[in-house]
Amino acid sequence: MAKKLKIKIPPIPKVSIRRAAHPDQVKQTLGQSPGTLIYTGKKTDGKVSVEVFSYNEKSIEEKAGPNIGACKDIIQDGNVNWVNINGLHQIKTINEIGEEFNLHPLLLEDVLNVDQRPKYEEFDKFLFFTIKMFHQTEEHGISYEHVSFALGKGIIISFQEKPEDLFNVIRDRLRNSIGKMRQKQTDYLFYRLIDTIVDHYYFVLDSFAEKIEQLEDEVMENPSTQTLQKLQGIRKELIYLRRSVYPLRESINSLMKNESPLMRKETERYFSDVYDHTIHVIESLDTYRELLSGIMDLYMNSVSNKMNEIMKVLTIMSTIFIPLTFIAGIYGMNFEYIPELGYHWGYAAVWILMILIAIIMLLLFKRKKWL
Amino acid sequence: MAKKLKIKIPPIPKVSIRRAAHPDQVKQTLGQSPGTLIYTGKKTDGKVSVEVFSYNEKSIEEKAGPNIGACKDIIQDGNVNWVNINGLHQIKTINEIGEEFNLHPLLLEDVLNVDQRPKYEEFDKFLFFTIKMFHQTEEHGISYEHVSFALGKGIIISFQEKPEDLFNVIRDRLRNSIGKMRQKQTDYLFYRLIDTIVDHYYFVLDSFAEKIEQLEDEVMENPSTQTLQKLQGIRKELIYLRRSVYPLRESINSLMKNESPLMRKETERYFSDVYDHTIHVIESLDTYRELLSGIMDLYMNSVSNKMNEIMKVLTIMSTIFIPLTFIAGIYGMNFEYIPELGYHWGYAAVWILMILIAIIMLLLFKRKKWL
Amino acid sequence: MAKKLKIKIPPIPKVSIRRAAHPDQVKQTLGQSPGTLIYTGKKTDGKVSVEVFSYNEKSIEEKAGPNIGACKDIIQDGNVNWVNINGLHQIKTINEIGEEFNLHPLLLEDVLNVDQRPKYEEFDKFLFFTIKMFHQTEEHGISYEHVSFALGKGIIISFQEKPEDLFNVIRDRLRNSIGKMRQKQTDYLFYRLIDTIVDHYYFVLDSFAEKIEQLEDEVMENPSTQTLQKLQGIRKELIYLRRSVYPLRESINSLMKNESPLMRKETERYFSDVYDHTIHVIESLDTYRELLSGIMDLYMNSVSNKMNEIMKVLTIMSTIFIPLTFIAGIYGMNFEYIPELGYHWGYAAVWILMILIAIIMLLLFKRKKWL
Amino acid sequence: MAKKLKIKIPPIPKVSIRRAAHPDQVKQTLGQSPGTLIYTGKKTDGKVSVEVFSYNEKSIEEKAGPNIGACKDIIQDGNVNWVNINGLHQIKTINEIGEEFNLHPLLLEDVLNVDQRPKYEEFDKFLFFTIKMFHQTEEHGISYEHVSFALGKGIIISFQEKPEDLFNVIRDRLRNSIGKMRQKQTDYLFYRLIDTIVDHYYFVLDSFAEKIEQLEDEVMENPSTQTLQKLQGIRKELIYLRRSVYPLRESINSLMKNESPLMRKETERYFSDVYDHTIHVIESLDTYRELLSGIMDLYMNSVSNKMNEIMKVLTIMSTIFIPLTFIAGIYGMNFEYIPELGYHWGYAAVWILMILIAIIMLLLFKRKKWL
Amino acid sequence: MAKKLKIKIPPIPKVSIRRAAHPDQVKQTLGQSPGTLIYTGKKTDGKVSVEVFSYNEKSIEEKAGPNIGACKDIIQDGNVNWVNINGLHQIKTINEIGEEFNLHPLLLEDVLNVDQRPKYEEFDKFLFFTIKMFHQTEEHGISYEHVSFALGKGIIISFQEKPEDLFNVIRDRLRNSIGKMRQKQTDYLFYRLIDTIVDHYYFVLDSFAEKIEQLEDEVMENPSTQTLQKLQGIRKELIYLRRSVYPLRESINSLMKNESPLMRKETERYFSDVYDHTIHVIESLDTYRELLSGIMDLYMNSVSNKMNEIMKVLTIMSTIFIPLTFIAGIYGMNFEYIPELGYHWGYAAVWILMILIAIIMLLLFKRKKWL
Repeated sequence: MAKKLKIKIPPIPKVSIRRAAHPDQVKQTLGQSPGTLIYTGKKTDGKVSVEVFSYNEKSIEEKAGPNIGACKDIIQDGNVNWVNINGLHQIKTINEIGEEFNLHPLLLEDVLNVDQRPKYEEFDKFLFFTIKMFHQTEEHGISYEHVSFALGKGIIISFQEKPEDLFNVIRDRLRNSIGKMRQKQTDYLFYRLIDTIVDHYYFVLDSFAEKIEQLEDEVMENPSTQTLQKLQGIRKELIYLRRSVYPLRESINSLMKNESPLMRKETERYFSDVYDHTIHVIESLDTYRELLSGIMDLYMNSVSNKMNEIMKVLTIMSTIFIPLTFIAGIYGMNFEYIPELGYHWGYAAVWILMILIAIIMLLLFKRKKWL
Repeated sequence: MAKKLKIKIPPIPKVSIRRAAHPDQVKQTLGQSPGTLIYTGKKTDGKVSVEVFSYNEKSIEEKAGPNIGACKDIIQDGNVNWVNINGLHQIKTINEIGEEFNLHPLLLEDVLNVDQRPKYEEFDKFLFFTIKMFHQTEEHGISYEHVSFALGKGIIISFQEKPEDLFNVIRDRLRNSIGKMRQKQTDYLFYRLIDTIVDHYYFVLDSFAEKIEQLEDEVMENPSTQTLQKLQGIRKELIYLRRSVYPLRESINSLMKNESPLMRKETERYFSDVYDHTIHVIESLDTYRELLSGIMDLYMNSVSNKMNEIMKVLTIMSTIFIPLTFIAGIYGMNFEYIPELGYHWGYAAVWILMILIAIIMLLLFKRKKWL
Repeated sequence: MAKKLKIKIPPIPKVSIRRAAHPDQVKQTLGQSPGTLIYTGKKTDGKVSVEVFSYNEKSIEEKAGPNIGACKDIIQDGNVNWVNINGLHQIKTINEIGEEFNLHPLLLEDVLNVDQRPKYEEFDKFLFFTIKMFHQTEEHGISYEHVSFALGKGIIISFQEKPEDLFNVIRDRLRNSIGKMRQKQTDYLFYRLIDTIVDHYYFVLDSFAEKIEQLEDEVMENPSTQTLQKLQGIRKELIYLRRSVYPLRESINSLMKNESPLMRKETERYFSDVYDHTIHVIESLDTYRELLSGIMDLYMNSVSNKMNEIMKVLTIMSTIFIPLTFIAGIYGMNFEYIPELGYHWGYAAVWILMILIAIIMLLLFKRKKWL
Repeated sequence: MAKKLKIKIPPIPKVSIRRAAHPDQVKQTLGQSPGTLIYTGKKTDGKVSVEVFSYNEKSIEEKAGPNIGACKDIIQDGNVNWVNINGLHQIKTINEIGEEFNLHPLLLEDVLNVDQRPKYEEFDKFLFFTIKMFHQTEEHGISYEHVSFALGKGIIISFQEKPEDLFNVIRDRLRNSIGKMRQKQTDYLFYRLIDTIVDHYYFVLDSFAEKIEQLEDEVMENPSTQTLQKLQGIRKELIYLRRSVYPLRESINSLMKNESPLMRKETERYFSDVYDHTIHVIESLDTYRELLSGIMDLYMNSVSNKMNEIMKVLTIMSTIFIPLTFIAGIYGMNFEYIPELGYHWGYAAVWILMILIAIIMLLLFKRKKWL
Repeated sequence: MAKKLKIKIPPIPKVSIRRAAHPDQVKQTLGQSPGTLIYTGKKTDGKVSVEVFSYNEKSIEEKAGPNIGACKDIIQDGNVNWVNINGLHQIKTINEIGEEFNLHPLLLEDVLNVDQRPKYEEFDKFLFFTIKMFHQTEEHGISYEHVSFALGKGIIISFQEKPEDLFNVIRDRLRNSIGKMRQKQTDYLFYRLIDTIVDHYYFVLDSFAEKIEQLEDEVMENPSTQTLQKLQGIRKELIYLRRSVYPLRESINSLMKNESPLMRKETERYFSDVYDHTIHVIESLDTYRELLSGIMDLYMNSVSNKMNEIMKVLTIMSTIFIPLTFIAGIYGMNFEYIPELGYHWGYAAVWILMILIAIIMLLLFKRKKWL
């Protein structure tokens, strides 16, 4: 039917059960004033880059640079301005942005805490929204990324952990004025960015479906200890995914219920669509969990069956040969007077007796359906 | 007692854990404007057909054609008009209908997304309702279909995925003016259509009951690995069914609570009846799940019992013959001086000894209730 | 302590997982107008009988007949009138009653649908209430019956599925003016009828307690595959019972909260008592479920223990005799030069050696607590 | 660390899964008017005794007798009056009290129904509260008692099932005017009585903690089938305890929320303390349940391990001796031409071969970590 | 990746399932007036010490002593005053503090009851808040401590069980006027103290993550009974931790919702941050529980696999040698006429036959994938 996506089960991200990439990062946060900026993700050497889009229905400008200073000049009142930051590991860059746009320190703290669960919060002049971005990479399995959005008047600032992202479709549509995006306001762009992220959840779901189906086949055909470890691996990833997506339901819900003028009534219907998708994703994850527990049962059963088969072979061999060996033992005794030993047909008779016993045994096993 | 419906356990529909029939369909939706129409179900060659009924208490007109243009002329103000579309795979046809009746793009998007969970939504001039239609086919087991309804003033538009449907009873009653339907308004027809779909859930429930009872018998009489795989299969189908029916509770509930003039007060009582049935179906599905887990226990136990039986046979044979073989071994030794060997009755005495040992063993096993 | 009620575990009622006694009955309901009367229970040959009581504090009249026409003449305004129908399988009789008292078609539909879950509904002139009646019969185990009540002004109509019922206590008290019933209004009689049904739930609970205790003893003393099947049987019955009683909580609750003049404030306290009992029954059922799962554990453990015991016997026998047989084998070899064979005490020495080995083995097993 | 309380695991009280001590008691209640007094506990021969305390800040009077008539004369308006009844089995005595103080029949019914779940109810002039009293006895394990309170203006009536009680501390403090009790009102005494009962729950919790710890040790050191039966026993008691305590949360909560003048605002804070304790007890019971399921796992594992150990012994013995016995068998054959038999060192060589094989086997087992 | 913290699994704190360190402590509380002060923790010999900080933006004073009298003189109106008590075992000291600051007896009771679950309560002039403080010690694993706070006008009193604490960071920042703390009010200090405690939960979480990962490795590489006991140990600690943290969610929530002037609006946002962290901790604990149950499955499976392997070895050895030994037995019989015995190549032929049988067996096992 459908062409199968070939997906390797990726290593379980360590981040799933640790707060920060490095314990020292946790230590640093202790006793700090709230709003002290500490990046809790993996430190990489990659540069942090900032790009700015400023557009209205008629024109679009675009500029990128290593920091906000280099490209803030194209931001223009009356336009929709989208500031996108790739990379969170240089606190200085983030700080500059915070100062430039007057972002609350607690907001920046959540931007940098990659372990922050999805949440929605209203600040004075900004709506703040964090979400997890998954994308399925060919080599490393699922890549998890912490993405935050600050929606202000005429401006939207997005913070991403890593350079590669899912927003190229959005960029192309903006540049080439495809669809209605250029005619719409900031809140619509905000919706489209979140929608793109949530849409990609389906890719990840599909790769899970794929993996689970492969596992099920493996369990039915040739289960091994590796199978179980894969199962446990998928289970762990599922737990992590669920944890990342579950709070989203609540946060999108409160986003929809907010009364801020930054979100217009008409955009709400679009977010209700995203809400719908989120629930669908959560339900799918729950379904997968149930499926996995079914596969676990199948696996356990296949282990039991293997045991049974081994035992059956042992029992059949033993119960056939034990009586025969006993008979051979009888006539191997050295009594002076064992009449059968003198008979000319004794040996042949013993063979016949033995073969008869074996046949009877086999018939009994057949009746017990062991053969 | 009851005549049994013979039902084969159908293959689990792949759609249950994939979003779309083909991954490309998912890809297409990424970054698209909301309301971009993409059909996510299986593409078939079948024609899309449109049929229109327009009736009042006194007269009824009926026309069908390949698209809405061919039959929209009989739609008449003041009448109850029912537009039924069979087949969703030709987006053009759906688009025409959307334009004809001024349907919201998001509404059409949900009509085409066969993976959409049941929901109720109010649009400006239409109430929108989606539901899953199951019907039990002889050859392919349960057939799942995504059905949507748009209820407007004097008009109801129904969208079905496949040509065969469950609405022939309704059509006959309309044509022959059986019952009160012809005297009632659009919202009553709407109720009757949904009621018919929910009533058919009971058929599917019955086929599940049937399958579960067969499985239980199989587990008690002759369990095999196939039994477990069937059990897992039913479990998967149950999960899918539950997922399809569960959101219905909520959506019928909000349908009942709506304040739109399109739904009259008196029709509400009828929908409360449908609501009741939905809850009954959900409770039944939950019951089935519990029954399945009971059957799982029975199965696991039967596997254990088989093992025990095998072990018992092995143990009985071994423990009887091991001492006997040992005695035979004793008198097979070649010591020059073994007094017993010289006795005339030695051989017979050994036989008697062996038989005695065997009898004692058997009595011991009897006391342990192994025989 | 308490005298034990002897109760056989009855066959699980098929009705528990089927909607109707016969699939054709389901088919009949498809596409029918709501309120079309179809009886979904078992068809029996028994006659339907109608009885009417009409009483006030001073006098009581009583009349019975095959239909309502035969006995409706004693119904009197100002009295409490109780119309009781035994048997639902003759739709004509039910229809006549519906017409006589002006009952809503949907009400009658629920009266006839024996699979209807307990519910409370308000109609124009009647309060409608359905409940499941269980009674413990000597021969067939628990008998399940669908009972409905319609409470109107000065009248209460009760519909029962089968002739035998639990209301004789009520009849006697009415006839002989025992207690306060004759001085009270219709809603009090209504309460007493429902109270009687709920009180009987305790009988059924007691029989479950009894069965569960028997099962527990059986599992501890002499578990067999039959034990597990009984356990599964009780579990199924418990599921059915719970499904029948659980919605009662909600329906009594809404009955208590209703604002109809048909239920007076003072009767509410009595219903709050019934509500209390219902919760107690539900809690007991949940407790039983937990107990059953504990018994399941005991059973599983006893199966494991049996296996262990079998293995132990096998192992003890084998490990004692295997070395002895080996020694016998050694001296059964035909080497020309085996010095021990020539010794006069060789044979005796071998016996001593063997006995020593056996004793050492037994001591080892003792230390491992296998003996 | 802490001195251990030695506690035997008591027999599970039958009352836990039966409604009444005797089925006839259930039968009696059927069809009875509400408020008909039937005692559902165990009938004992012990006398019912009534004691009355009447006190104010300055003075205290105390009188006891076989019924209320004998001691009601000291009850005095303006004082705090405490009437305590020990023993519920003489309905006459209870009835007299009901008449004396004008108690509602439904209130008395709940006093006598020892299976009544904890509840709070407001009557015209009395607040009614039932609770379960546990106390840890040396001989019989936990003793369960049904205790009820009726709080009226200036009077509190307490009903206990058995003579021994937990209220002696209260009596002493009243007599000797210790603490503030003598200065406070009826509602404070009410609080102190309930507080005393709830405080004793902690004793029972401690004995559970003790038993569970003993069980855990037993499972780790020397598990047997008795261990599992003890575990099941504790589980059953826990279920019963939970059922008794769980509804208390709700009933204390509604007691606190009541608006009756019988409970003063300032006493509420004290009850909020009791509420806190109740939640703590419930949480502990839940924790114990989780601990028990952990112990269950340990037990199951120890059974598996035992099996493994038995199998290992069998396998080691068998696999070492089977090849050796085979070799002995070879040289026990009677072929005329077996060259090895003629060699002078043949016998010694065979021994060496055998010992080598045994050593190799043992090394293999060592590598597999079976030794 | 991250440097690993080496953490030994500490002994499960007994306090987790006992109310008090010593049963006598429970006994003492029975029948006592509410507010009678009884310390339920472990008695230690350590001194109780009191320290006072009094600061404003410009200056800070600090004094410590054995009781409140020795250092209360620096408390100053208009300043933020922080009174910190280390050690709860000397009731006299606590009592003095209660008198000095006019604390409610019930508040002090909760301060001393180390088993008190986290709660928030409003008293006349104080807000009361208890929380559990965990800190990871090198030697003893996790150390649990009961900490309480009373927040009054211009004063905050903190009660700690043990001398060592987590507040040194706070002290340093106060002394050196780092950050904004010195410019803020009492409620901000209150927030910082609680925040510090909750931040340390992450350390404990990390040590759990570490232990769980170690366990998972151990289960995959070399599972033993010890592994299971460790698993059970972690599970117990997790249960205790969860019980300590879970009620925190509710109590911080009611703290945030309080309307007391002691908490200013602007501090609320900070507490909402703490609330967020608490939920994150609870979610992590739930995740750990799921992970542990996955590890349990892995363990159980590894036990089964070991069994299978043992059985396989036994079966292979037995089934190969049993037929061979039988053949040797045949030619060990003493029949006078066994033709094969006379053949010159008989012995060699038998060897060849045996080797053939062995090879065939091995090939069969290979096909079954047992080798």
